[in-house]
Amino acid sequence: MSNKIKRFFLPESEIPTQWYNIQADMVNKPLPPLNPATKEVLKPEDLFPIFAEELCRQEFDQTHRWIDIPEEVRDMYKYYRSTPLVRAYGLEKALGTPAHIYFKNESVSPMGSHKLNSAIPQAYYCKQEGVKNVTTETGAGQWGASLAYAAKLFGLEAAVYQVKISYEQKPYRRSIMQTFGAQVTASPSMSTRAGKDILTATPSHQGSLGTAISEAIELATTTPNCKYTLGSVLSHVTLHQTVIGLEAEKQMKMAGEYPDIVIACFGGGSNFGGMSFPFLRHNILEGKKTRFIAAEPASCPKLTKGEFRYDFGDEAGYTPLLPMFTLGHKFTPANIHAGGLRYHGAGVIVSQLLKDKLIEAVDIQQIEAFNAGVIFARAEGIIPAPESCHAIAATINEANKCKETGEEKVILFNLSGHGLIDMSAYDNYFAGNLVNYSYEPGENAK
Amino acid sequence: MSNKIKRFFLPESEIPTQWYNIQADMVNKPLPPLNPATKEVLKPEDLFPIFAEELCRQEFDQTHRWIDIPEEVRDMYKYYRSTPLVRAYGLEKALGTPAHIYFKNESVSPMGSHKLNSAIPQAYYCKQEGVKNVTTETGAGQWGASLAYAAKLFGLEAAVYQVKISYEQKPYRRSIMQTFGAQVTASPSMSTRAGKDILTATPSHQGSLGTAISEAIELATTTPNCKYTLGSVLSHVTLHQTVIGLEAEKQMKMAGEYPDIVIACFGGGSNFGGMSFPFLRHNILEGKKTRFIAAEPASCPKLTKGEFRYDFGDEAGYTPLLPMFTLGHKFTPANIHAGGLRYHGAGVIVSQLLKDKLIEAVDIQQIEAFNAGVIFARAEGIIPAPESCHAIAATINEANKCKETGEEKVILFNLSGHGLIDMSAYDNYFAGNLVNYSYEPGENAK
Repeated sequence: MSNKIKRFFLPESEIPTQWYNIQADMVNKPLPPLNPATKEVLKPEDLFPIFAEELCRQEFDQTHRWIDIPEEVRDMYKYYRSTPLVRAYGLEKALGTPAHIYFKNESVSPMGSHKLNSAIPQAYYCKQEGVKNVTTETGAGQWGASLAYAAKLFGLEAAVYQVKISYEQKPYRRSIMQTFGAQVTASPSMSTRAGKDILTATPSHQGSLGTAISEAIELATTTPNCKYTLGSVLSHVTLHQTVIGLEAEKQMKMAGEYPDIVIACFGGGSNFGGMSFPFLRHNILEGKKTRFIAAEPASCPKLTKGEFRYDFGDEAGYTPLLPMFTLGHKFTPANIHAGGLRYHGAGVIVSQLLKDKLIEAVDIQQIEAFNAGVIFARAEGIIPAPESCHAIAATINEANKCKETGEEKVILFNLSGHGLIDMSAYDNYFAGNLVNYSYEPGENAK
Repeated sequence: MSNKIKRFFLPESEIPTQWYNIQADMVNKPLPPLNPATKEVLKPEDLFPIFAEELCRQEFDQTHRWIDIPEEVRDMYKYYRSTPLVRAYGLEKALGTPAHIYFKNESVSPMGSHKLNSAIPQAYYCKQEGVKNVTTETGAGQWGASLAYAAKLFGLEAAVYQVKISYEQKPYRRSIMQTFGAQVTASPSMSTRAGKDILTATPSHQGSLGTAISEAIELATTTPNCKYTLGSVLSHVTLHQTVIGLEAEKQMKMAGEYPDIVIACFGGGSNFGGMSFPFLRHNILEGKKTRFIAAEPASCPKLTKGEFRYDFGDEAGYTPLLPMFTLGHKFTPANIHAGGLRYHGAGVIVSQLLKDKLIEAVDIQQIEAFNAGVIFARAEGIIPAPESCHAIAATINEANKCKETGEEKVILFNLSGHGLIDMSAYDNYFAGNLVNYSYEPGENAK
């Protein structure tokens, strides 16, 4: 590869100045969120008590294709953006595939994942609107760490509910949040009504994103001058994450290629949407034929085995009713190490796109994900987050198909985060202690 | 800062093609290493049984200013180089200093530190010479992880002796090494004579780099087709690390500035030398007046309180006698969290330069180091390694002097690694459990 470029960076002047709002280009718009009590269609101002107002407007915006990124947010993006687009020569060689594999390396963000892309604007808009405190949930802790840092940047206090199983599996992530001054509580906790109800019913409950969301919303709505923030699922979060795909689009041009397949792991959809939507717009507007594959865990398969219907975004039912692919808001996912993918539903945009067959989904077993992660680590030198391992597994599957057919397809995936805080998961993998979990709908599914 | 550039990258075509060998430019060359038994001056071939031959030649080379970087090594450098040069606008603001602070961010290497810069060529030369197995020591594990990965890249087996206190403090680093297929043993161990002797004399011995080096050398010299590799101290390791300073020199030009002060933390000297020597050559050759400050831990102060004399590089006395600033090869450093700085001596080049007053040294207490690390983390978003915290503390001291005098000095420091695997140290810091250690020479000093 000596004369070939491995990593592509954009100059700071080329970092996107606008996010891409795919809602403006969708033929079938997402169905509206509903008030659970009245079943009335919600408007942005109905969410003002929970989120910063500008975020509510972004959430409902179906007309503006481009949303300006505030200058203060772009200044903070410069701390780590552009992230590199990398040609995975090492992985290609390890697989013996003719495919050209690229990945966008979001793991170089100082917090270790793409989550900072939305944490910064969410904290910024809160600050602009005079908010003093922010709350949130976090699974593996990537989002919580990012919000903790963003809150510190803008002088806000942050309280984070971390899913209990992750709080215990990944103590360093808690330490990182605390280094940035955030208060971290294991969820379910006895500090909220939602938490108390869950613990009373199931004292050994290990937590889930849906539960932690309930607790964080409850804290936000019962605390003066406090707003809730969310790390995925919602349309405004995915909007912010489009900075990934917009950069990747420019960087793929630098590499002289265009992706045949775009792959990302899938929890609530912001990582997948952030990478995919800027490319998907060329399918919608210009008839390109790129395939978009969401890689979800086999034990939490809302896209491949869920139902499309209205459901709550959280366990306690505090959120509006959202039109989503869902396993049911009371579904408790298995204790896989990919804590960021342990969520019962999919964001409304992605759900509509899947319904319209504009995107695809595959499910990946836990052990297959780690197999892929270790192949990648040894080939590219980066230990991937358990979440990202799902995208790598799907990538390897597609690359191996190319090996069979001889096709030189261009595959682009998002390396959403590194796994340096997840080494106990790798220890378990090497010790043969990881298990696969089947999906069993059971009575909690509804 | 909106129109100002924060991070400077080099295109891959500008990554250095040669390392800089300062020995060629030194007026007073380092004194030669001696055979401990005969006191005769050693030649490169005397070290062939221990190290790859090309590394031995590099070690003794006092004539060639520039040493070509092999193409295969440059290909591997492309996986993470250039690393960014960053203008620390956040830190400047937090300190209220008129100084212009820059840092070279070596923490973005996939192994989390600068160590990979030498691990790759060391593994490469071993492979070229038909070696099958490599051994090494590691403290905090940054070097061991880098060697483990580099060995995997070139198809070598790696055995790593990790200082016991770090093995216990930083279990994730062990997991990382194992992910890359290395065998990791806590040192002192019962697997070598050197280890047995130490454990017999001091059963509770917590290990030191000097002890782990003895064990690794012993394994290398008693195993067929096996070479030893070292992560710092030696001149060839520092040579490889000059890629840092050479890149920084080009990047500072992009920023339109030249450093008045260059700062790096100091364990054995390769990080400090790698950053400093390319700039120091302009002092030597062109009369520039840049200051070079090595930041060492107050509990292990070989530069500020050691003696310049011949001493062994390891605890058991397996190495040649080296002319170095030393606390005595039997000195056991206190259990500070900056495991990579727990070494009794300084490399021969740095020792000569310090003797000739071409560089300076300061000692930093553990708590001062973490104070600085937290200020930096909250200002720049990157949690620094405990080792790097020493460089940051020295940087803050110089920046605060500028605040008093109003001088706009340009300060450049090396962020040698991130602290994501060292979060237990930060936990201890926030819990108030960290202590400062005084240096007490005692009877072990000789």
